[in-house]
Amino acid sequence: MKKALAIDVGGTKIYNAIIDETGKILSDVEKHSTPKTFDQIKAIFTEIIKKYEKDVDIIAFSTCGEVNNENTKIVGSTGNIAKEYPNMNFKELSTKPVYVENDANCAAWAEAKIGAAKDSKNSVMITFGTGVGGGIIINNKLFKGKSGAAGSMHFKMYPDKRRKCTCGAWDCFEAYTSGPGLAKTAAEMTGNPDVTTYDIIDGVKNSDDKMIEIYNRWHDYIISGVIGLANLFDPECFVLSGSMAEFIQTDRVEKEVNSEIITAPVKIFKATAGNYSGMIGAALLALNSGGING
Amino acid sequence: MKKALAIDVGGTKIYNAIIDETGKILSDVEKHSTPKTFDQIKAIFTEIIKKYEKDVDIIAFSTCGEVNNENTKIVGSTGNIAKEYPNMNFKELSTKPVYVENDANCAAWAEAKIGAAKDSKNSVMITFGTGVGGGIIINNKLFKGKSGAAGSMHFKMYPDKRRKCTCGAWDCFEAYTSGPGLAKTAAEMTGNPDVTTYDIIDGVKNSDDKMIEIYNRWHDYIISGVIGLANLFDPECFVLSGSMAEFIQTDRVEKEVNSEIITAPVKIFKATAGNYSGMIGAALLALNSGGING
Repeated sequence: MKKALAIDVGGTKIYNAIIDETGKILSDVEKHSTPKTFDQIKAIFTEIIKKYEKDVDIIAFSTCGEVNNENTKIVGSTGNIAKEYPNMNFKELSTKPVYVENDANCAAWAEAKIGAAKDSKNSVMITFGTGVGGGIIINNKLFKGKSGAAGSMHFKMYPDKRRKCTCGAWDCFEAYTSGPGLAKTAAEMTGNPDVTTYDIIDGVKNSDDKMIEIYNRWHDYIISGVIGLANLFDPECFVLSGSMAEFIQTDRVEKEVNSEIITAPVKIFKATAGNYSGMIGAALLALNSGGING
Repeated sequence: MKKALAIDVGGTKIYNAIIDETGKILSDVEKHSTPKTFDQIKAIFTEIIKKYEKDVDIIAFSTCGEVNNENTKIVGSTGNIAKEYPNMNFKELSTKPVYVENDANCAAWAEAKIGAAKDSKNSVMITFGTGVGGGIIINNKLFKGKSGAAGSMHFKMYPDKRRKCTCGAWDCFEAYTSGPGLAKTAAEMTGNPDVTTYDIIDGVKNSDDKMIEIYNRWHDYIISGVIGLANLFDPECFVLSGSMAEFIQTDRVEKEVNSEIITAPVKIFKATAGNYSGMIGAALLALNSGGING
């Protein structure tokens, strides 16, 4: 059975493992802190690849940043990683083939193949964390668009410039539904800039009226966004993932979304492919040459 | 060369013409007023088909309402046409094959094949009129989603229930950017419920400050929506069509959208496939079995 060396590259951590074509993790998962500079990041890649490339058929990167439709390089800039990182020449890192895909797209692919969306031909995965990412599957293929950036969850919640998004634009879905977005809403609603997402979740557990109001507002933003996505993409399901997803009431989102959309009903699931879904998706895409729509 | 009898069905008019597989209209275009009842509509279809079916290979309907992925029937309800119309059994209307597709999807297909988007693999067409419709082409295929309703331009401009949309939900793109949506904005901004879209366009021509402010607000809504669509779909271009499109400043929309999106730049075009793009698209889809993505 074919195997991939999967490497997941985020702003904070780099993970690697050997994964087979069914998505099974065959090795220990190794973890490194993401270093500050391009050269240090490249040195870690080189070290990992030197150690394992002989045991695998392909190197599969799941990385922050949007990736081109040829799966060879990052296009545009990425947030919280060395600013030269997008210039990485992945192909020259190994004598084996190298495949690169965006981490949210990899996770969406893992969910579509072995996770919550495995019975769906069309699915939309949304990751809620420090940012908000998206990966969209259309007709069993990964949807990339013309430049590889399709599925970017930067559509507007308001048309009138209220809150700046990390992407540089105004009022994106991310700016209201990410962890920092929820904290910002809390600061606006309480006048206290120090309320954390933990305070909000704790407050909800302890029946604090104000925290429940903030938590409900956060759900309203999520529901508003998902309604639009359901009408635009008409998928069988949505998969919610990321560190903030555990606090989302999926039953409530599903009920409210289905009461407003004009497309056929959607299912709302939590992700089930696990913490390493990025690596698993990268390996599955790389080993089975998953089709691309774009 | 193969030919289709194309029939365009709207709430006000029914058109028909014979069109070949290159999209050329070979006959006069006939026009009927859309009657009130299901039986009267069916009688017009029967009359048209009886007259022309012997001359063509297929009957191609471009219709209001979303159409299933098998292109045989309407799914869900439609706005301003006899409420039983979605029950029409199109197949039994002719001894020749019958193909049915949504009118906005047909127009988007015509633009993608012979119109403004003919050099694009991925395009988003938006029709601005009494309502706002959409048709999306992904990787040279019509994007339909699981139930045929993908590309519905019902995503929210605000998350907090300000203006009801004709679809029954709140604050959809349609509710702010359609002709009636523009008039509603004018009523809100002037306190006068009788301002028409004509008054606004005339006012802009005559440098009326208030009308210019309303016109600019309308553009802000359009630009906000297109930014989100560009980030989600990453298309090469947008095609703006419909009776209201002639009043949209495409250069301004293109410039502002490209200054905010995180995907690669998009082009904004006006539609070029003409008034009969629905019939042309239906004929091209029916005769060339255009692929479906969903």
